[in-house]
Amino acid sequence: MSVAERHSPAEPPSRAEPCHDIAHLAHVEMYTDRYEESLRFFTEVYGLTLTAEDAGSAYLRAFDDYEFHSLKLTRHDTTGIGHVAYRASSEAALQRRVKAIEASGYRIHGWTAGDLGHGRAFRFEDPFGHVFEIYFDTHRYAAPAGQKAALKNIAQRYHGRGACPRRLDHLNLLASDVREFRRFMETCLGSRVTEMIQLDNGRIGGCWFTINNKTYDLACTEEHGGGTGRLHHVTYATDQREDILRAADIFLENGVHIETGPHKHAIQGTFFLYVWEPAGNRVELANAGARLILAPDWEPIVWTETDRKKGQAWGLKTIETFHTHGTPPAKKG
Amino acid sequence: MSVAERHSPAEPPSRAEPCHDIAHLAHVEMYTDRYEESLRFFTEVYGLTLTAEDAGSAYLRAFDDYEFHSLKLTRHDTTGIGHVAYRASSEAALQRRVKAIEASGYRIHGWTAGDLGHGRAFRFEDPFGHVFEIYFDTHRYAAPAGQKAALKNIAQRYHGRGACPRRLDHLNLLASDVREFRRFMETCLGSRVTEMIQLDNGRIGGCWFTINNKTYDLACTEEHGGGTGRLHHVTYATDQREDILRAADIFLENGVHIETGPHKHAIQGTFFLYVWEPAGNRVELANAGARLILAPDWEPIVWTETDRKKGQAWGLKTIETFHTHGTPPAKKG
Amino acid sequence: MSVAERHSPAEPPSRAEPCHDIAHLAHVEMYTDRYEESLRFFTEVYGLTLTAEDAGSAYLRAFDDYEFHSLKLTRHDTTGIGHVAYRASSEAALQRRVKAIEASGYRIHGWTAGDLGHGRAFRFEDPFGHVFEIYFDTHRYAAPAGQKAALKNIAQRYHGRGACPRRLDHLNLLASDVREFRRFMETCLGSRVTEMIQLDNGRIGGCWFTINNKTYDLACTEEHGGGTGRLHHVTYATDQREDILRAADIFLENGVHIETGPHKHAIQGTFFLYVWEPAGNRVELANAGARLILAPDWEPIVWTETDRKKGQAWGLKTIETFHTHGTPPAKKG
Amino acid sequence: MSVAERHSPAEPPSRAEPCHDIAHLAHVEMYTDRYEESLRFFTEVYGLTLTAEDAGSAYLRAFDDYEFHSLKLTRHDTTGIGHVAYRASSEAALQRRVKAIEASGYRIHGWTAGDLGHGRAFRFEDPFGHVFEIYFDTHRYAAPAGQKAALKNIAQRYHGRGACPRRLDHLNLLASDVREFRRFMETCLGSRVTEMIQLDNGRIGGCWFTINNKTYDLACTEEHGGGTGRLHHVTYATDQREDILRAADIFLENGVHIETGPHKHAIQGTFFLYVWEPAGNRVELANAGARLILAPDWEPIVWTETDRKKGQAWGLKTIETFHTHGTPPAKKG
Repeated sequence: MSVAERHSPAEPPSRAEPCHDIAHLAHVEMYTDRYEESLRFFTEVYGLTLTAEDAGSAYLRAFDDYEFHSLKLTRHDTTGIGHVAYRASSEAALQRRVKAIEASGYRIHGWTAGDLGHGRAFRFEDPFGHVFEIYFDTHRYAAPAGQKAALKNIAQRYHGRGACPRRLDHLNLLASDVREFRRFMETCLGSRVTEMIQLDNGRIGGCWFTINNKTYDLACTEEHGGGTGRLHHVTYATDQREDILRAADIFLENGVHIETGPHKHAIQGTFFLYVWEPAGNRVELANAGARLILAPDWEPIVWTETDRKKGQAWGLKTIETFHTHGTPPAKKG
Repeated sequence: MSVAERHSPAEPPSRAEPCHDIAHLAHVEMYTDRYEESLRFFTEVYGLTLTAEDAGSAYLRAFDDYEFHSLKLTRHDTTGIGHVAYRASSEAALQRRVKAIEASGYRIHGWTAGDLGHGRAFRFEDPFGHVFEIYFDTHRYAAPAGQKAALKNIAQRYHGRGACPRRLDHLNLLASDVREFRRFMETCLGSRVTEMIQLDNGRIGGCWFTINNKTYDLACTEEHGGGTGRLHHVTYATDQREDILRAADIFLENGVHIETGPHKHAIQGTFFLYVWEPAGNRVELANAGARLILAPDWEPIVWTETDRKKGQAWGLKTIETFHTHGTPPAKKG
Repeated sequence: MSVAERHSPAEPPSRAEPCHDIAHLAHVEMYTDRYEESLRFFTEVYGLTLTAEDAGSAYLRAFDDYEFHSLKLTRHDTTGIGHVAYRASSEAALQRRVKAIEASGYRIHGWTAGDLGHGRAFRFEDPFGHVFEIYFDTHRYAAPAGQKAALKNIAQRYHGRGACPRRLDHLNLLASDVREFRRFMETCLGSRVTEMIQLDNGRIGGCWFTINNKTYDLACTEEHGGGTGRLHHVTYATDQREDILRAADIFLENGVHIETGPHKHAIQGTFFLYVWEPAGNRVELANAGARLILAPDWEPIVWTETDRKKGQAWGLKTIETFHTHGTPPAKKG
Repeated sequence: MSVAERHSPAEPPSRAEPCHDIAHLAHVEMYTDRYEESLRFFTEVYGLTLTAEDAGSAYLRAFDDYEFHSLKLTRHDTTGIGHVAYRASSEAALQRRVKAIEASGYRIHGWTAGDLGHGRAFRFEDPFGHVFEIYFDTHRYAAPAGQKAALKNIAQRYHGRGACPRRLDHLNLLASDVREFRRFMETCLGSRVTEMIQLDNGRIGGCWFTINNKTYDLACTEEHGGGTGRLHHVTYATDQREDILRAADIFLENGVHIETGPHKHAIQGTFFLYVWEPAGNRVELANAGARLILAPDWEPIVWTETDRKKGQAWGLKTIETFHTHGTPPAKKG
């Protein structure tokens, strides 16, 4: 069954209305086997704020994330991600999605009671071992006395500590079959593809998805390291490109491994900087400028291998580790 | 009948799903009585590109507007706006909106055959004389040979001419009763209010609307000049705040009247710069950083008169002409 | 023969070689009657680093100031400045300057034993009560373990705390007779005038001086508040204009009084932001871009009152307090 | 004879006063064998202004260069540089330099009658075939009607065309013996070394010189391509780093070969972008932020091979062509 058939039998998918059941990417649970170091990195250097902490996890957020948390940093025996959460547009929309997921045949974990940051959530899994959850009932961040913003339209004061990004932006997951991952995203979340890499061998090398007007909130690239359920990176958005140049100096001075950047991606045109947090998870800071996907019938941009040989937007060759490093580390042998 | 009742009798509006029938603000028709000068300003100084020109109008767009045009500059005996256009999410969504508008009691102009930039459109009018249209069938911009971008994901090459904003952002209309204008926007377009000014006298001083994840695509502020159907300003978005600082020098060197800015609005946190194009229409360049409205149940931010007395975000007092100047000029006596 | 004589009667000043006896503005001693609050402001919000502290003073510096301190913050019963220090180009140059100052007839305080930050210094005074000192023997800043920079060519690590300017830039002093102040600067330091305001009444309204390639390191504007020996402001330089926009948010969130800006000065073209530290001293952050005075025979730029009526570079009208507020407060009749 | 002996027998060089006979780097003559293409690149893409053109050369300048020209682009059968010019601080200083050069034993070309941009000049040559000239009498740029700046303190209006840098910044020459080149610069121009690369084999890998408060106006790196008298690159300064990011898009859209960057150099901390103009000469855009060399007794920063293995400031590995490409191309075999 083709994507077109699955999605909308009567007309090609690009003419269908975008699905709006899911409102936005909400949070990511990241595993770390160096919890204290990772926590210090995310609060002091990357510039997130600790909303709460329990025995197992720290709940973190950027200064203008409106929810309780956008990053759950969890003590674990390895690295990678625990789960990815999206918030639904309403309770009714959540129910519609649950029905679609239940009908999809994908692996279902079922309802959880929720977490510090939100109410009950429905969990399911992609064919590559990444766990997703969707929920509607959320706990909005209520800034304590010292954290109230001078202007009432941002969630928390601009604290200016570390890189200080504004909000969670996206994540990138590795999968051995990106085409199959695409089917999962379209079926379960109703995501749209905004850009993709079409390899000469017929496979999809990478695929960028959005559920709203952001250029992408989740990307999937082909796994070359042999692992399963792995994370490529998690990204927060800065207001300006200059914030990223400034962050590069902050990372440098704090001994953080800068993997590549700052530079501009050809795909999506995002200005980027990739570093490895102390436990080895790749995290990015990104700025998309004023670029949004406003067209309801946006046609995916398709990049060929020939296109990709030109490197990033301004010619930078992609660094080798970018193709191989994921978390957790792939098991040898 | 309250807003809640009108919108969704069974539940409070903040719990209802946002309406997604309309995809985005599409274009604005601006009148000028100094056509040649205005056209030169918009192409050479403001940095738009002329897609087409006929006897009456110039069709202009920013380098990453995906449609044929986002500004229609029309020869006229005065200034102000001709109409405001939004694009629907699909043909079916367009039909749903038409039904809602027809049922609303607002003044209807009916279907037009379309324009150079799009197919048939449905026209209607707010109680203050501003004409709106909605359509789905669009003419995408196809870059001619010299205008193709090096990267295939932007609509046109980054030409770097003048201020060179990326895309149409929003417009601001004047109305004698902002509360009534709000009802119009919610009823006809399904827009959401993201921020508003609540005056001590019970009136709404200003209201910011969005139809998607942008922080706003249309604002309405109270008319104090005595006119009707007037325009306050039209705005394009730049990728960075630095683009606006640079634009200020370009405006300075080209003798353009800089009214106020660059500075940061308290409301919406937008970095702004307002100038008057040669015929007197106010145009803005703005940058919202990475700020988006992602919450499906965003509660409007309400600013009081006391709040507003603090001036703009960094203390700038609002210049007097900002409260009085609109186009066309209000008739005296 | 005085500099004035050498410079004016015998030959046009623009053909003489610039005097290079003085290398650069070195530090400013600022008085505060709210020492703890001022110190917290300068370290946590403005982003300087405390090098040392004794009973009376805190020695502060920006991350790339190469000397021990560039701001000496001193407990006092009022505000304003204690003294202004310039560093000579060599011991011999220092002696040449001392001779010129001794011959000048200006008030001499004589040699001091030095301070924590430098060796012996020669003190003298302008006709308006501002104390100056010049010295050559300096104590270079030696970054302690945690403050060493990742790159060996900056004095201290880029800590990213607060506004985090790079270095001391300039100060502005108030004087009842700017023309006479100019004679003092040319005679004692060998400074050059780069820009000035020529009032219609024949007086000089303001004068900008440099001793090297900076566009200015000291400005003097006409005193209108009735005080003597007063300070208008002290300024540090940021690397980018974006640093100043970011600083504006930091000031806003920390309850600092933002007096005016960010905006661009017409005179010197500097991008600026003025705030009042807790005790009331005006401090600025400024960025000159790549502008330098490289011409050895630079002719002073003269601004008339008519020029000044255009406001700042992008039209901002100068705020009233900018003309009247200085420290210490002028005594009332 | 050591540097210390040569320079100032009685005291170590770092305690001597800097020599101020030379005021600044003034212009570079660049050869091109694709004159029309190079000229279009420099005016339309790089953003310089053509002051004059004769049969052999185009005289170009950045918008705030105060002299007639800072780049002389000359038709030639190959690429590389014709000569490098510095302006003296006065006529007397020029004479002092001429005497020092005549006494130095370096090859002398003698006095020329001058050029469109300046009066008589004294020419001499380094041991590697690069021709230098020094002069004092200059022709200041007088902006024609359409090019007058809105603010009287800049040389020409900010035209905003292309990358639009503010002024000439520096150049980089290749030499087979950098230590010997250093002796030439110190002897003939009185330049100071601000940073250098000390190779493990005892040779100097690169050396950065300044004649004033700029961090460097000329660099010399070791020739590895076998040529003589070759140019590595010529650089103009932008006001902001954002100007360079924007320029990268302009270069991309105009099909200019981007060799490396934007990134930040470890040495000197300069933010850079290198491209090849149509004839193959490497040109750079650079931004140093607020960094200046103010210390009269600045001690050269010495980078070891171990230091250099860390790559550029944020870890970028230096691209291979950066070590080998110079102009004119080295003759094979």
